[in-house]
Amino acid sequence: MSENTLSFLKRQLKDIVGGYKLDVPECPIKLNQNENPYDWPSSLKQEVFERVRDEAWNRYPPFVPADFTSQVARHVGVEPSQILVGNGSNELMYAVFACVLEPGRKLVITQPTFTLYSLLGKVFGAEVVDVPLTSDMQFDIAGIEKAAQGASVVVIASPNNPTGSVIEPTDLEHLVAGNAALFVVDEAYFDFHGESALELTRTYRNVVVLRTFSKAFATAGLRFGFMVAHPDALPFFATAKLPYNVNIFTMAAVEVAMEHAVTLKGRLEEIKRERERVLRVLKGYPSIRAFPSRANFVLFETDRPARKVWHSMVRRGVLIRDVSSYPGLSRALRVSIGRPEENDAFLKALEYAMVEVAPEGP
Amino acid sequence: MSENTLSFLKRQLKDIVGGYKLDVPECPIKLNQNENPYDWPSSLKQEVFERVRDEAWNRYPPFVPADFTSQVARHVGVEPSQILVGNGSNELMYAVFACVLEPGRKLVITQPTFTLYSLLGKVFGAEVVDVPLTSDMQFDIAGIEKAAQGASVVVIASPNNPTGSVIEPTDLEHLVAGNAALFVVDEAYFDFHGESALELTRTYRNVVVLRTFSKAFATAGLRFGFMVAHPDALPFFATAKLPYNVNIFTMAAVEVAMEHAVTLKGRLEEIKRERERVLRVLKGYPSIRAFPSRANFVLFETDRPARKVWHSMVRRGVLIRDVSSYPGLSRALRVSIGRPEENDAFLKALEYAMVEVAPEGP
Repeated sequence: MSENTLSFLKRQLKDIVGGYKLDVPECPIKLNQNENPYDWPSSLKQEVFERVRDEAWNRYPPFVPADFTSQVARHVGVEPSQILVGNGSNELMYAVFACVLEPGRKLVITQPTFTLYSLLGKVFGAEVVDVPLTSDMQFDIAGIEKAAQGASVVVIASPNNPTGSVIEPTDLEHLVAGNAALFVVDEAYFDFHGESALELTRTYRNVVVLRTFSKAFATAGLRFGFMVAHPDALPFFATAKLPYNVNIFTMAAVEVAMEHAVTLKGRLEEIKRERERVLRVLKGYPSIRAFPSRANFVLFETDRPARKVWHSMVRRGVLIRDVSSYPGLSRALRVSIGRPEENDAFLKALEYAMVEVAPEGP
Repeated sequence: MSENTLSFLKRQLKDIVGGYKLDVPECPIKLNQNENPYDWPSSLKQEVFERVRDEAWNRYPPFVPADFTSQVARHVGVEPSQILVGNGSNELMYAVFACVLEPGRKLVITQPTFTLYSLLGKVFGAEVVDVPLTSDMQFDIAGIEKAAQGASVVVIASPNNPTGSVIEPTDLEHLVAGNAALFVVDEAYFDFHGESALELTRTYRNVVVLRTFSKAFATAGLRFGFMVAHPDALPFFATAKLPYNVNIFTMAAVEVAMEHAVTLKGRLEEIKRERERVLRVLKGYPSIRAFPSRANFVLFETDRPARKVWHSMVRRGVLIRDVSSYPGLSRALRVSIGRPEENDAFLKALEYAMVEVAPEGP
């Protein structure tokens, strides 16, 4: 079989194949994916089952799930005509990129950030322009503004993964108002922060906000996300999104989640308190630099080789995320905030690792 | 707000916005979406709930669901390295197109066929080349062969929607072997036909087979599909597919479906018998031309205006699909095969419509 039987592939695919991977050893303490540490209560799971039981599984979900979309809109406080729902916000990011990116077009991202933006941009053949965060992991507004000139899309994650940094609403509006590019604001971690770009979608047609139920709503296993955009822009993104994309079970679960938002999000305050506690302990180490975070995770650098620290902690049963391959983060690790006892286990395993692993030369 | 605030959109979006729509009045008899007319038995739904009950909904599904993929592979009879799973086969079509299509590249489809291929191809900026079916709705193999020269992708739905026509395995192999383009064979309706291109994926790297659980497995509400490709080609398609795309509920349901395949597919023979019965009745009308079908639907043309016939039937509570806007089908309607009593209701409503609606001039 000759090589040219794969000649139908776009050239760039060969450079990025297998580009987004995850190394997941089995560990009792799992703090590597920024998940909410609290599962749904059985009573709410049961409520979902009861709603789905009488539905016809052999029938397609509605072509446009109008009732469901309206409920999501009401929950968020926007118009139904501003909402598009999907299997995780990633699916909606994909639809947005499909509408905007092609060879010859520019995608601006800040770095370090979530790996998928760059990967997807390259799949679509776009030129990916990186704007580094400042040395204290803050958004470089002037740098973004400059890079956005002539770009088609700018992606800003706020709070940003893996740094926990946020963009100021006034800075964001300044960027959106002064530029023709589309600004995609990924607010996966919004609920741990509280400030949103949502208001901008009422006025500006070049801003899209992505949200997910995976984090604060403890629903990562079901993969539900949604997009908020200006009503004039939404129909275009809807065209590039597949019909019937959200299944009947996910819709039932999300309805139950919204009706019981207080219960499911009840742990947010605890998670934020725990985040501050973890940060305080980390800051007690002279050999560790921890960054303030507005999300449910904390980024920190040590003077030890990150991979070795990670391995040492895995051996103690604590799985965090080694982010040292991210641009500018060669010494960094990221820990998700779990239940108090999980955070204790993390702090203990880290203490051990800082003894076990020798510092690296400068 | 000036028009140029949507200047970030790819030009072609403005031509195709809102391109895939569905007109769905409420009707007691629903024969418009080629669904399996039999819902899951309650006992099997319950089994799914029991599997999902103890899973952690707050955790992401596995990054690569290896066990699940292996089960699907075993069910189909291919290697796990040939399988990619998704939320409906449409999602996998999207991933394939993302790997192969961009401006300057050619997508070949036969016409009439499923609307989404052309729409998605245009989103990706490809030139869409239509190869008409023959006048008796068969694949024009010579025409496809000619169009495939220099094309990047050829999509063949077999059985084809909305015509029910199929491609001969020898014709397909002839095309695949003689061409560098990627052949995507959409086998959504495979179980009603029985012949597959699956064997070709063992040898040829330029063929992809798409399957779904929405039809024969009566699982449209959950949207599960998978792709089978050569192990050398699969990693590229996997790169363009989003991680964690299939949720824990869908995986549990598909596992239960595979374990109870005999139950869920038990009605296939009845559906095929009913299809032949409906065809026989349609052929009894001198003013109707019905096409043989290997799927769970039947395409037919009348000498009446299709829209008026459709409306007349809707008024009698029977919803079928008006496909008269498809290329070459200006007088055609498509009816899904339902339960025997639903098919009776269809035949009765059609009889009434053929009296109520006057023939069109030539």
